[in-house]
Formats: sequence, C-alpha cells, structure tokens
Amino acid sequence: MNAIGVDVGGTKIAAGVVTPEGEILNEVRYPSAGPRERLLSSIARAVDEVKDGYEVGAVCLAVPGFVLSAENKVIFAPNLHAIEGVPLKYDLGERTGLSVTVENDANAAAWGEFRFGAGREVDHLVFITLGTGVGGGVVMHGILLRGAQGAGGELGHVTIHATGPRCGCGNHGCLEALASGTAIQRRAREVANEQPDSALGRLAIERRVLGEDVTELAREGDEAAISVLKETGVWLGIGLAGFVNVFNPEVIAIGGGVARAGELILERARQEVYLRARSPSRDLVRIQEATLGAESGVLGAAALARDESGEYVLGS
Amino acid sequence: MNAIGVDVGGTKIAAGVVTPEGEILNEVRYPSAGPRERLLSSIARAVDEVKDGYEVGAVCLAVPGFVLSAENKVIFAPNLHAIEGVPLKYDLGERTGLSVTVENDANAAAWGEFRFGAGREVDHLVFITLGTGVGGGVVMHGILLRGAQGAGGELGHVTIHATGPRCGCGNHGCLEALASGTAIQRRAREVANEQPDSALGRLAIERRVLGEDVTELAREGDEAAISVLKETGVWLGIGLAGFVNVFNPEVIAIGGGVARAGELILERARQEVYLRARSPSRDLVRIQEATLGAESGVLGAAALARDESGEYVLGS
Repeated sequence: MNAIGVDVGGTKIAAGVVTPEGEILNEVRYPSAGPRERLLSSIARAVDEVKDGYEVGAVCLAVPGFVLSAENKVIFAPNLHAIEGVPLKYDLGERTGLSVTVENDANAAAWGEFRFGAGREVDHLVFITLGTGVGGGVVMHGILLRGAQGAGGELGHVTIHATGPRCGCGNHGCLEALASGTAIQRRAREVANEQPDSALGRLAIERRVLGEDVTELAREGDEAAISVLKETGVWLGIGLAGFVNVFNPEVIAIGGGVARAGELILERARQEVYLRARSPSRDLVRIQEATLGAESGVLGAAALARDESGEYVLGS
Repeated sequence: MNAIGVDVGGTKIAAGVVTPEGEILNEVRYPSAGPRERLLSSIARAVDEVKDGYEVGAVCLAVPGFVLSAENKVIFAPNLHAIEGVPLKYDLGERTGLSVTVENDANAAAWGEFRFGAGREVDHLVFITLGTGVGGGVVMHGILLRGAQGAGGELGHVTIHATGPRCGCGNHGCLEALASGTAIQRRAREVANEQPDSALGRLAIERRVLGEDVTELAREGDEAAISVLKETGVWLGIGLAGFVNVFNPEVIAIGGGVARAGELILERARQEVYLRARSPSRDLVRIQEATLGAESGVLGAAALARDESGEYVLGS
C-alpha cells in the first residue's frame, strides 16, 4: 500500500505519495509560513492535492521538534512555533479523512535512510543531520529508538568537550556546538581573522561567510578553509566514536547541508573514530554520506506511516 | 521455567538457579582462576552442582568482555584472557547437556535490573556500572541494545572531555577516565597532595588510598574527600546528560563499587543532568542506585537465558 509522507519544515511543506519500495509517485510543495490555522490548512491541502486519486493507506508528518509519541503531539518546535501543542493526529485526521501520525523530522529521515537509503541493507543505523543544528535518529535491531516519550535520538546534544563553546540548548561543548553549520561559521570567522590573506580571510572582509562558502573555498584549495573543515571533521569524529561504542552500528549516515562538504569533513571524522573507538565496532562501521538528500523526510515519514500500520516486520 | 545464570568474573564464578520471578533458589561459588581447561571445567561443575535436581530450561553465562552475539563467543576479555576465543556455547553445552548462551556481563546486569530491579516497571533503562572501569547496558522499547556484533552498550567509552585524561582504552576524556574508581583514586591522590592536612591527605601519607577510603572519609565529613566525590559526580552527570538526550530513558540505574558512595556522587550528577540535558527527557528520568547489587549478573543472565528462549514478549 502507498503512503503519504509530509515533511513540515520551517519554510516549506513537502508532501509525497510513496510506494512500499520507496518510489515517489507524486509530490507537491507549499510554503509553511503563516499562523496556526493557515499552516494546518496548508498541510491538509498538500495531502489532498498529492493524493490525487492514488490509493493511500496512511499519512505521517515529519516535524522539526520534540514529538510526544503517545499523543502524536509536538511540544517544542523552535523553528515552527505555530505547530506546538496542536493535536495533529486528530486535527489533520479530521481534515484529511486519513489516518495521521506525527514524528520528529530527524527520526523520520533516519527511518527513510534505514528503509531506502544508506542503511537499507543493515539492521543498525545511526543517522546524523548536520545543518544549522545537529539532529539524529537511531535504528537498532530494526527498531527506531524513540525513547520513553519520543524525545530520544538527540545526538547533537551529547557533551564531547565539557568546557567547550556554549550550545544553543544552553549546555557547553555539545556536538552541535562544535560540528554544526553554525559552528563552522564561527570557526571560519576566527580563522579568517587569524589568516586575513587567505581566500577565506579576504571573503570575510567583503561579507558574512556562510557554511557553503567554506566548502567552496576548501574545494578551490584554500588552506584556511580546509583547516576549518578538517577541524570540524575531528569534532564530528569525537562524537561519532562515542556512538560507535554505544550503538555498534553497521552504518553511520551523515545528512544535512554540512554533509555536502563530503570527504573534506568525513576523512578526518573517520580517522578520529579509528583513534578513539574500540574494536570490533570501529572496524565494522561504515561512515558515509546519507543517500536520500532532501527527500529523506518525505520518504521516511511515508515509510513510518506504512510500517507502523503493521506491514513492516522487525528485522525483515 | 527456571534458568541458570552464571556470572563469570575475573576472580570468581557465581551460578544460580533463578525462577521467572527473579528468586534465586540455589547458588554456588567457585574461584575462576586457572588456565582455560580448569576454568571451563569449573564453570561446568558450578552449573552441575547448582542444578541439583531443579528443573532448568537454559543457561546463560555473563562474561567480562566483548561477546560476538552471532557466535556466542568472547573475543576480548582483558581480565579473563583464558576465556577468549572459546566456543563457549558449544563447549559448555556439551559439558553440561544444557542449552547455553553467552552475554557481556554489563549487558546481562542491565537486563537483570530491567526485569527484576530498578527498571522492572519501565520499558527504557540505562544501566551503568562504575567500578575499576565503567560498563553499561541499555534497554529500549523492551529490547537489549547489543548492536550489530554484540559490542554495543560501551557507555564508559564516550568522550565527554576531548582533552581529558587518557583512558585505559587508549582514548582521551572517556567517561571511564573521569568517573571510574580508578579516576577517583587518581583524583584523590592529587587532592591529598594539595591538602596534606585533610583526613584524605593524612591517609595518603600512611598508605595507598582506595576508592572505598574516599567514600568512608567523605561520610565522616572530610571536605577533601567530599570534593573528590562531588567532582566525580559532575563528570558522571556530564556523561549521563548525553545518555538522557540520546535515549530518553525513564530510569538510569548506577551499579558497581563506586555506586556505594550513593548520594555523595548522585546528587551532583543529577544537578549536572538538569543543567545539561533537555526537556522533556531531563524531567522524566530517575537517576538512582541499581537495586540488585552483586546478584545482578546471575539474575540478568538467568533472565536472558529464559527470555531469549522465547518466554518473554516484548513490552510485557
């Protein structure tokens, strides 16, 4: 049976009809701006429009915030406050006439990579998304690890350097504070000041340096930009080494905008994992880019909608 | 059906016949010293002797090392080299005439706490044992998280301070390097040197200070000893905060010798979790001493032997 996955982001809503094999048959996009009623009707409209005569079993929304599993309700969504506290399952179930569930977006993306992407041939996958922040989701023994309330999988908020920089969450030295796009920008400013004659330094005098600028300059061979990404790779690797020891996964898949730096970051991350993690886990794990890109939310949400309605059997 | 749990330690073997409700009907202890053949025949003898007419369905050995799940084989046991590489499932199956499985000791203890101890009323439990080293085991959604090879749950080897002291595993700044009994001894030596007139300082001049000395002096009110344990509690809390965000567990149970310091360590650990972890996970979690003490290995192994032979249903 097909299912609809809806990726509700801070700026856009993407809804897709997805087959059990992970093929997207139809997809629509809407802006997600606006107050609560407008947002909810946009989601409902996206679902209606994308359905378009396809036979569909269920719908799952992937949302950027803490989702209480038991209630299918978002309790905290820093980039989408309009959705907080809404009984989405019931509200959108009524608006669409379909069975609706709700999941944290990183958890949904992890499930997408597990079913259709980097983890499709394994039972244990750690998914990390490196963007403005750092999110994550973990599948072990074929099960999505949500935790008691649904707030698990917050991989960006483990302390890897107790006296490190302050994180957006209030803690110090989180993985997010050291390996996110935001961290890259901060470090790029520092390196630009230290090396004003580098390409990075010259750009920083002209305008605000973004994460993608650092990647681009690094690809062009600027040593200052390369050093920023290598340092980021080391911090990432320190975090990943812990996950390798804790989860013993076959695959760690890295998604999000920062992952587009690819080997410029991942090579150092792998080295650090090899130095810091233990055998046999460190020898088994494959650390790679996620493969579904921007579609991971839609695909993962659709897979969850279907799998949790009973079609998926553990370990199959 | 009753099952036999065997806790194979570096110095002793404890075997017990355990009921489905967690009652130990019979227990025997043997020394575990000696070369391989002596060790194996001691384990077999312990099983035979403890069985003593009881009806028993299966046996599980809890061993201090990495256990490859698929093969039920120990590949690395730093404190019990004699057991490495032995096909225990087959060897002891033949010697005892019973169905034998093998599990890492911290994982077994975690399962014991989950079924009969601190986690018996929840579905998500993080168990940490603080002794000479730091071990752990995690149960989520009613499942023991072994990972792809069985090497998961190594909670002592997550980096919480990237530039911290070197750990026995070769890494720097592991939780084990900062919150184990070994770390307490090291820190106690430093504090004794800084405060030679404290009770801790005076004891250190007489003889080598052990972890339990620090706890005892702290209970007697020695500020130097108290400061060592409080600092340990802070490091423990930094590690636990990460686990709270990653696992969103209802309970974190702390076992092992260091846990006997109780609130002298746990109070600070809880404060640190509250400062560093996120809502709603930090508000839900209960951080407490493990309740099964030295029997957790026998009880957990017996429960695993029975549950994995099919009697336990997920989430029941």
